[in-house]
Amino acid sequence: MATRVTVWNEFLHERENAVVRDVYPDGIHATIAAALRQDSGIEAGTATLDQPEHGLSADTLSRTDVLVWWGHKAHGRVEDSVVERVAQRVWEGMGLIVLHSGHFSKIFKRLMGTPCSLRWREAGERERVWAINPSHPIAHGIGEALVLENSEMYGEPFLVPEPLETVFVSWYQGGEVFRSGLTYQRGAGRIFYFGAGHETYPIYHDKDVQQVLRNAVRWAHNPAPAWVGVEQAPNRPIGKAPEPIEQRGGSLHAAGEAGFK
Amino acid sequence: MATRVTVWNEFLHERENAVVRDVYPDGIHATIAAALRQDSGIEAGTATLDQPEHGLSADTLSRTDVLVWWGHKAHGRVEDSVVERVAQRVWEGMGLIVLHSGHFSKIFKRLMGTPCSLRWREAGERERVWAINPSHPIAHGIGEALVLENSEMYGEPFLVPEPLETVFVSWYQGGEVFRSGLTYQRGAGRIFYFGAGHETYPIYHDKDVQQVLRNAVRWAHNPAPAWVGVEQAPNRPIGKAPEPIEQRGGSLHAAGEAGFK
Amino acid sequence: MATRVTVWNEFLHERENAVVRDVYPDGIHATIAAALRQDSGIEAGTATLDQPEHGLSADTLSRTDVLVWWGHKAHGRVEDSVVERVAQRVWEGMGLIVLHSGHFSKIFKRLMGTPCSLRWREAGERERVWAINPSHPIAHGIGEALVLENSEMYGEPFLVPEPLETVFVSWYQGGEVFRSGLTYQRGAGRIFYFGAGHETYPIYHDKDVQQVLRNAVRWAHNPAPAWVGVEQAPNRPIGKAPEPIEQRGGSLHAAGEAGFK
Amino acid sequence: MATRVTVWNEFLHERENAVVRDVYPDGIHATIAAALRQDSGIEAGTATLDQPEHGLSADTLSRTDVLVWWGHKAHGRVEDSVVERVAQRVWEGMGLIVLHSGHFSKIFKRLMGTPCSLRWREAGERERVWAINPSHPIAHGIGEALVLENSEMYGEPFLVPEPLETVFVSWYQGGEVFRSGLTYQRGAGRIFYFGAGHETYPIYHDKDVQQVLRNAVRWAHNPAPAWVGVEQAPNRPIGKAPEPIEQRGGSLHAAGEAGFK
Repeated sequence: MATRVTVWNEFLHERENAVVRDVYPDGIHATIAAALRQDSGIEAGTATLDQPEHGLSADTLSRTDVLVWWGHKAHGRVEDSVVERVAQRVWEGMGLIVLHSGHFSKIFKRLMGTPCSLRWREAGERERVWAINPSHPIAHGIGEALVLENSEMYGEPFLVPEPLETVFVSWYQGGEVFRSGLTYQRGAGRIFYFGAGHETYPIYHDKDVQQVLRNAVRWAHNPAPAWVGVEQAPNRPIGKAPEPIEQRGGSLHAAGEAGFK
Repeated sequence: MATRVTVWNEFLHERENAVVRDVYPDGIHATIAAALRQDSGIEAGTATLDQPEHGLSADTLSRTDVLVWWGHKAHGRVEDSVVERVAQRVWEGMGLIVLHSGHFSKIFKRLMGTPCSLRWREAGERERVWAINPSHPIAHGIGEALVLENSEMYGEPFLVPEPLETVFVSWYQGGEVFRSGLTYQRGAGRIFYFGAGHETYPIYHDKDVQQVLRNAVRWAHNPAPAWVGVEQAPNRPIGKAPEPIEQRGGSLHAAGEAGFK
Repeated sequence: MATRVTVWNEFLHERENAVVRDVYPDGIHATIAAALRQDSGIEAGTATLDQPEHGLSADTLSRTDVLVWWGHKAHGRVEDSVVERVAQRVWEGMGLIVLHSGHFSKIFKRLMGTPCSLRWREAGERERVWAINPSHPIAHGIGEALVLENSEMYGEPFLVPEPLETVFVSWYQGGEVFRSGLTYQRGAGRIFYFGAGHETYPIYHDKDVQQVLRNAVRWAHNPAPAWVGVEQAPNRPIGKAPEPIEQRGGSLHAAGEAGFK
Repeated sequence: MATRVTVWNEFLHERENAVVRDVYPDGIHATIAAALRQDSGIEAGTATLDQPEHGLSADTLSRTDVLVWWGHKAHGRVEDSVVERVAQRVWEGMGLIVLHSGHFSKIFKRLMGTPCSLRWREAGERERVWAINPSHPIAHGIGEALVLENSEMYGEPFLVPEPLETVFVSWYQGGEVFRSGLTYQRGAGRIFYFGAGHETYPIYHDKDVQQVLRNAVRWAHNPAPAWVGVEQAPNRPIGKAPEPIEQRGGSLHAAGEAGFK
């Protein structure tokens, strides 16, 4: 069974800024999708901010096993209704890979329940991404560390919940550290945040970074059927209780009535 | 140092429904606040939905160490701006105790990033709340289990993130189980969800439940100074890097420029 | 790539007790191995206490991707050297499924670092194993709960560390609850504890239980190369530091000297 | 209620090595105990390897709320019976602070269930201990980072289980990172591992390090009564089940019989 991926990109820097365009002439999404397709078990499409519904229609999302998210300067332009639609799909079981500046995207903040803030510096300094859980499937084939000769510094404290697993921790030349690879589950969906990816450096052309992306996509794919109705709180009537019981005590609800939302 | 608590209650059932009014003539908030005040180190005030700003002004929240939340039928009437204000205070370090039907409150869903859905049945059946982590401060003095002779069933799956700690797990007469005591951290704030508390039964008059509430309030109080600005991502300029570094590679930002939000 | 499993069984009750022999004439291990082989991607062998090295030679373990463990009355007869060998293989990446009374096995206590104690009652009462994380790969195909009409009660508190994930929580007719499906990682190895399996009831003949076992084996298989030397703390000499540094301050060690153990 | 601490030290380097003796003329334990006593709520005693029972008699441990552990070259000389006694006390509720090279102590490996291995280099390089969870009680008063001008490098991967909380992550001049402040719970006992403390540098004379030690001791103190019998698995007879049930199905045990160990 193939893993169907949609790579979402804001796709603004590449059109507006010469430095970025030189690095990603077809957009970050195109580079990432091409990297994913090197795994024959991955089918990768793309979507961008300026498309109708940002390219994330209900139909597209229903056929997406894993969504990859890259955004930076236009988080605020993503429609709330699309954010909710994506969140719903994650709860139903769609995987989500949030990249780099996506830490401040609406969807990541929505799913974390925290500010997702951090410290940053754009100095082109060296970053060493240590695989602290090197046998984790997301770190497969990476070795002990992945080195980015030029990177943007992202520093702790990183305001996210305690993760399920810490896969990568980064060292920066300028003196900071960052938990740069973190896993979460929200509803039935698996989430991986990966810190690497500043747009002015050719980070998504790096073969190790590409390997992490492929690994992460495979890991995030939950083959369970979509959990439709995951957000609902169904009443389980007395007559359908697993063990036989009878009504006792006071009640607010008439029989069979829906609960409050 | 006293722990300053604000007990928030929707306060609708008690005024509209005779069954509930009989159990809580002055409102659930009054009963809970009185129970908390049995600990001389706790100062408890109250706030309700119909007050201006739902009784949760910036000033009140700034003087609140721990907020207790009970709501049920009017989650949708809580203003989003107040929800965001409460979330911000939690990130800054305010503790939050979410009770029973508060699982579907805007603030709990906001901080969890999940639907917080569950199964339910109002049959007045017996619930046995097992202290599965009996040496946890929140379970102090409870013994192996707390028994509620009449309770509303809340059943798994409960759509919340994996907790930091599972303190209580409930057994129901009708055959279900529920993780009824869960801890989380969001930003600097500690959160405890406690399942007990259906409004038609005298659950907040139970001495063991009251003990759990006092324990939880004490546990959730983070004495660290409020983390003002927790939601911001400050630039750390090259000249202020902990280790001396120089600018290298391409850049998108002019020197000293603010980051994107 | 097939998953190579070794099913280990104490294999005493089945030979000594008529009730158990009637349920498992060829031993619990034979029943489990047969159930696993229903998945064509699983190759299952067996090993028992009375074999040389308890059937767990270094060679056998080196060719085992996942070890399944059932023991009850003879935990103390398992040689410590074999326990250490198994622990080492788990750290290197071998998966481990610990079943039922295996909670008190040397290997489980060794890897948990806790007493692994619990409460128990052998009354043949009904157990309802709720899939509280129903989209987890281990719960695949189970539905909302798995019902065991006759089961031994295992009750909380269960003295294990907070798990990575809670997959199943059990309800018992007699009033108790139990976290009956828990995941852990130790070194590179994934561990799943599963509570079902008292020897006097035909629990491993249940098709849902068999499904969980197949799921768990698949989940626990870490395809990463064995992490040989996982237990060692290698010196990284100054000349091989990732960043150039020079010796400063006092030193206890002569150059190139091994560390203390 | 005062927190009663026992500071345990191997106390060999200070007597055998001139460099270490110059830094800690009375032993590391004496320096740490003096630092703890700056908090008037802490009563600190000491114990060392060469004392009878390593200074850790049952009586001493029964009067110890938190044990601090420093060892390096003689882990193997600590009697297994004393290790088991300490583990039992941790499960009963005693706090444990494991320092620096104590990562390879018998007691830490015993409680983690993992090799606790890491990479190391003794170059006197700079270490920056970032408080990544700065509002955690253990980081109280530390600021964003604690700087050790000369430190031994401890590098990832650090073979411990996923922690409950990651409080500190260290940056090293030579290019590595390390999770240098981790919390765990084992039984009723809270455990904190803190990486700082190489014996040839004056690290325990640092005021910030001393603050962390005081914070950690306060955090690790569980005021709950000692959980005597935490390691036992008591039978809960049918007649004492919380809900009335009757014996059904086959049985291995005679009525009232003890379980297998």
